[in-house]
Amino acid sequence: MAERPRIEFWYDFASTYSYLSVMRITALAQVHDIRIEWRPFLLGAIFARQGWSTSPFNLYPAKGRNMMRDLERLAQERGLGFRMPDPFPQNSLLAARVGTVGVEEGWIADFTRGVFQAEFATGAQISDPQVLAGVLEDIHLDAKRILAAAQSSETKDALRRRTDEAIAKDIYGAPSFVVGQELFWGDDRLEQALRWAES
Amino acid sequence: MAERPRIEFWYDFASTYSYLSVMRITALAQVHDIRIEWRPFLLGAIFARQGWSTSPFNLYPAKGRNMMRDLERLAQERGLGFRMPDPFPQNSLLAARVGTVGVEEGWIADFTRGVFQAEFATGAQISDPQVLAGVLEDIHLDAKRILAAAQSSETKDALRRRTDEAIAKDIYGAPSFVVGQELFWGDDRLEQALRWAES
Repeated sequence: MAERPRIEFWYDFASTYSYLSVMRITALAQVHDIRIEWRPFLLGAIFARQGWSTSPFNLYPAKGRNMMRDLERLAQERGLGFRMPDPFPQNSLLAARVGTVGVEEGWIADFTRGVFQAEFATGAQISDPQVLAGVLEDIHLDAKRILAAAQSSETKDALRRRTDEAIAKDIYGAPSFVVGQELFWGDDRLEQALRWAES
Repeated sequence: MAERPRIEFWYDFASTYSYLSVMRITALAQVHDIRIEWRPFLLGAIFARQGWSTSPFNLYPAKGRNMMRDLERLAQERGLGFRMPDPFPQNSLLAARVGTVGVEEGWIADFTRGVFQAEFATGAQISDPQVLAGVLEDIHLDAKRILAAAQSSETKDALRRRTDEAIAKDIYGAPSFVVGQELFWGDDRLEQALRWAES
């Protein structure tokens, strides 16, 4: 029996375009019977290596203005809510640590959708442990235990290793999709990456 | 009678992703009966204002590597040749000046396709007046007269004004599409921009 095709989905919880992919990747991958490997990482660490202190959407204001309008138009076409969180980008460290526990324990997909929806549909502060606790409780998980596990040195190390792995895979933005040796960048490449995984 | 809808197509002759749009915009706009207003400009002037001395694809090597692979994949899907010119980016000043004459005289579409095809399908040097003369002759134009007109102070001023107009429209990359007050960035947004023009 042939192995089921896989796609690695690399995203940062603060990334606007990752929101678009998070809200559609599960349905698209199901249609194509492709397994998603969820890979939350810290894009800020990669930006810092490029000499950027914040998102390029803040460093280059015209680019930032168009990103917001682009997201508004795309969210409307796709029937998604869209509200920019303030500040942007949100500090995504705690969400990424919780997500690292979620990868290990198998609830990362539901947690990821909950965080992105809270952040970009309602403008919630994802650096706030209470917000993340709410997302975890909505999916019937023990928030107290998980938030403690998120701060363990084991989890912190696992997240650092994953971000190092992203750098090793030449990832420079989010969302990114990896299929074998092929790297695809951006929500606009999600369909192409899935076709690549199928072929 | 309703006015025929229009789309402004802003591009730089050195831009890889503009190549993708140049090779398909005419056919797509015809299907939708939309008039294309060709707007060659100098993206380098905008990059310089952002503190960049060259293309971000050179400044950020991982981004540059993925751009090349992305272009290869897309060109293959679309049946286009693709070869990166060396050096990249090409100096597009002379091509933009000739293009400015072409906008005035009505042969900009054919000239633009010829230049992009020479540059990205065969790797030709578009800063070389002989290469541009070849493109002009292929479309039965008087290369000598046009290359002289391209260097007139009138043409140089018109190109400067167009680049200033791009900045005023908040353009920060190429290709860009403008429909009324709406700015769309990137070949990936061409279809959406055309739908916007139609509606």
